[in-house]
Amino acid sequence: MAAPTVERLRVNYKTLEDFQNFKEVGIQELSMKEELEENIIENDSESPFYGIYFGNKLVARMCLYLIKQKYDHYFEPPQDYLELWKLEVLEPYRGQGFGEAMVNHAKSFNLPVKTNARQRSDHFWEKMGFEPVTYHPERDRGENPYVWFPAGVSEQTHEED
Amino acid sequence: MAAPTVERLRVNYKTLEDFQNFKEVGIQELSMKEELEENIIENDSESPFYGIYFGNKLVARMCLYLIKQKYDHYFEPPQDYLELWKLEVLEPYRGQGFGEAMVNHAKSFNLPVKTNARQRSDHFWEKMGFEPVTYHPERDRGENPYVWFPAGVSEQTHEED
Repeated sequence: MAAPTVERLRVNYKTLEDFQNFKEVGIQELSMKEELEENIIENDSESPFYGIYFGNKLVARMCLYLIKQKYDHYFEPPQDYLELWKLEVLEPYRGQGFGEAMVNHAKSFNLPVKTNARQRSDHFWEKMGFEPVTYHPERDRGENPYVWFPAGVSEQTHEED
Repeated sequence: MAAPTVERLRVNYKTLEDFQNFKEVGIQELSMKEELEENIIENDSESPFYGIYFGNKLVARMCLYLIKQKYDHYFEPPQDYLELWKLEVLEPYRGQGFGEAMVNHAKSFNLPVKTNARQRSDHFWEKMGFEPVTYHPERDRGENPYVWFPAGVSEQTHEED
């Protein structure tokens, strides 16, 4: 089977309705809806979300957000990197490589990637070539950060506070 | 029934074993175990975790971490506040007020409290007097921040990036 196509999602009412099928819905989606209603963002403009459609149905999604070098506390040398969140495949579509296709798409930009690994998902991230970082409470707080290093990139070291 | 007693948890092998019953286990717990093994932290020292014991069994826990004023991007005026994470009540003990007792304990320090509300838990946090903040992608990224304001404290406003 060919690898599923990962698409950049557009902000419109159809996308926002599709998002309601996912578990991880919160303030970010609510904010998008309000900005669309108030014409702060244009209908059909590019969103920071990517997804996979199965026919007409959005069955997987993730958000990829470019973090600027000056905010990079994870990578050496410090650089722009991608933060990946809300990776989710709808229940009936799991185990068919959709999650892997999404993460491979994130890696295809060849920037370092950082995510907050959800409950007991370590095995998935390790299979995808991600590694846990050294835990620093001031930086990581309640997170469980896993990172992917492109060639030539390593973990930033931190002094204890 | 009297309100359950919320205790500060101590770092020792019994606590770390108890933690394995919870879903949200990750790098933070692994790091505690390594620091204990390498004598970087003393056995039975205070942890940033609080919990409720039912008999000998740890049935609920949360982490409370003091964030210093200079890192405060949520509250006006900027001040020290508590970040609350990994609030979890073991499945068979839910619906008995343990979660409420934990959050009330966090509020009892009378500092602002910030948490990242998990999937579809908005109703719980609102019942506990928390409010969603205005979403700022640079600050909030994949989070769904809910905050509790003590008297005289309000939300910090941010310019768009």
